[in-house]
Amino acid sequence: MTDIAALARGCAILGTGGGGDVRTGSLAAVRAVREYGEVPLVELADLPEDALVVPLSGIGAPTVSHEMIHSEEEPKRIAEEVERLFGRPPTAIMSSEIGGANGVAPVAWAAQLGLPLLDADGMGRAFPEVQMVSMYVAGLPANLVIMSDVAGNVVTIRPVDGLWSERLARAVCVASGSHALMADYVLTAARARGAVIEGTVTRALDVGRATEGAPDPLRALQDRLGAVRLITGKLTDVERRTTGGFVRGTATVEGTGDDRGRSLALELQNENLVAVENGRVRAMVPDLITVVDTETAAAVQTESLRYGQRVTVLAWPCDPLWRTPKGLETAGPRAFGYELDYVPVEELTAHG
Amino acid sequence: MTDIAALARGCAILGTGGGGDVRTGSLAAVRAVREYGEVPLVELADLPEDALVVPLSGIGAPTVSHEMIHSEEEPKRIAEEVERLFGRPPTAIMSSEIGGANGVAPVAWAAQLGLPLLDADGMGRAFPEVQMVSMYVAGLPANLVIMSDVAGNVVTIRPVDGLWSERLARAVCVASGSHALMADYVLTAARARGAVIEGTVTRALDVGRATEGAPDPLRALQDRLGAVRLITGKLTDVERRTTGGFVRGTATVEGTGDDRGRSLALELQNENLVAVENGRVRAMVPDLITVVDTETAAAVQTESLRYGQRVTVLAWPCDPLWRTPKGLETAGPRAFGYELDYVPVEELTAHG
Repeated sequence: MTDIAALARGCAILGTGGGGDVRTGSLAAVRAVREYGEVPLVELADLPEDALVVPLSGIGAPTVSHEMIHSEEEPKRIAEEVERLFGRPPTAIMSSEIGGANGVAPVAWAAQLGLPLLDADGMGRAFPEVQMVSMYVAGLPANLVIMSDVAGNVVTIRPVDGLWSERLARAVCVASGSHALMADYVLTAARARGAVIEGTVTRALDVGRATEGAPDPLRALQDRLGAVRLITGKLTDVERRTTGGFVRGTATVEGTGDDRGRSLALELQNENLVAVENGRVRAMVPDLITVVDTETAAAVQTESLRYGQRVTVLAWPCDPLWRTPKGLETAGPRAFGYELDYVPVEELTAHG
Repeated sequence: MTDIAALARGCAILGTGGGGDVRTGSLAAVRAVREYGEVPLVELADLPEDALVVPLSGIGAPTVSHEMIHSEEEPKRIAEEVERLFGRPPTAIMSSEIGGANGVAPVAWAAQLGLPLLDADGMGRAFPEVQMVSMYVAGLPANLVIMSDVAGNVVTIRPVDGLWSERLARAVCVASGSHALMADYVLTAARARGAVIEGTVTRALDVGRATEGAPDPLRALQDRLGAVRLITGKLTDVERRTTGGFVRGTATVEGTGDDRGRSLALELQNENLVAVENGRVRAMVPDLITVVDTETAAAVQTESLRYGQRVTVLAWPCDPLWRTPKGLETAGPRAFGYELDYVPVEELTAHG
């Protein structure tokens, strides 16, 4: 799996603005592959039943994490703790979240550990909170989190549920300087079946390659994603603040060209969560909403939103898992404090 | 070790205002002993070399902890985690901090676990921060903290040093609702020698009994402690605030009787840290400063300080361990942000 540039582009698109700056993840991945060699991509079906899969992600505020110096010791300390707790070493690394830096950086972590990367993740996108993973939605008890930080501290959390997992992991993250590496759940391959979203590394690579050499990159990306174009215009208002390990804020896109006179507001919480036009919701979490550069179709992540940028906002359907009652309870609009009943993006835009 | 009332009185005196409300610890101890039976007191010399000693303490802000409901599951979850990590169960419980509730509550935890209590602690008094323990001063690596909370969460911290231990444990404590039970270090008896302060449970019992039936309780207590009387008067000003799991503030005692015209200010950070009269320091941490009721000689803990109380402030020398360079670096006045060079209370009061 050599095409880290394409993977990074794809992960940025699937990150819906969040998941950490893909440039950090890419640099780390390129450097680690150069030093330790290629990372094989494996499928779940290829692993023995008792193989240990370690889902890893960076946890923290994007505006902090892309400035942080990462340590190669972090994945090693987590692998050591896994071996201490389970009596055997990890078999494969998995990305907890394919969106953003957390989709790319696992290549670095896998390379450093000399382990393969599983072609799967726990979100199929990016989400801001620890319990918002497919394993939780699939009903696996959220009973183990292992964290390591750049200072060398290792913290193992045995939470009573996913909400405590998030609360405690976030507190540790903030105390560690608003960034840490985290293994959330350690899964046998047997337990991972049906509890992870398979094929998402391949999907990210595929999305990242869609724009390569395309005469109309935006069109090519939109087709590959099966996305609706919500607006094309320029960013006129960006308001962000970092609190408690999160970036929250709003961004407004004023339409240009065919969209002149229209205006779309995005609600952000690390990721783009809700898109509103004239008081009418056009797309909402857990469906994916990504801001891209209108010309290149490259994703514009939350921390890079700037006044005056020429952008297009795309939206497309999430993995069906997130549309189940447990999925919506975990990561639907109300899980983020919006008093909205979830309506799929296809319906919202079909009625437009 | 039946005399929980005397133990509680002694622990309150040794708590220098902090360590949590002894009433909470006493109630829990009385109840647990009634249900599970007496707790034997053992000496370090009685334990086999590889016996596991688990130093336990409640961590949190006193103003929160005395209102919290504790769970009997907390010590059990810590004991389970110790067994999981070390492959054998704990042999004895130790109080991390003999001062305040943390000196009394270990009787409850030991009873619930059916284990003896070691006649020792890690402070010989109370201190507000996790790394301020004799094990740290003795140079044992601060590399393991196990915490459990009332919700049932268990967090294991492998910090790189004592300061990270404090920082991470405090963050977990605040996330857990500003109270948690904590095992800080797990020691073999062999490692505990010279690294714990022995005899302090007996000392607390002894101090607690000093006032029993004494015609002049204050005099009896002062003699037993070898304490200097800094002032007798009434509390005229008490200012406290709870931030980040700590109680901070100041209290002023205006002299009465022979001390009329004098005034003593106490600086608080869970414990009484510095006593100042007319800009002159009369006693400072790590020496012990305790406010007692002038009539009964019972300790007045930080959270119980009230305007108008008739009190006497006593001060006496700390364990010699705290006067070593490492001891002062860990818990001397500068460790609490005071720009003061440590001078022993005997010298400060001799020159008065």
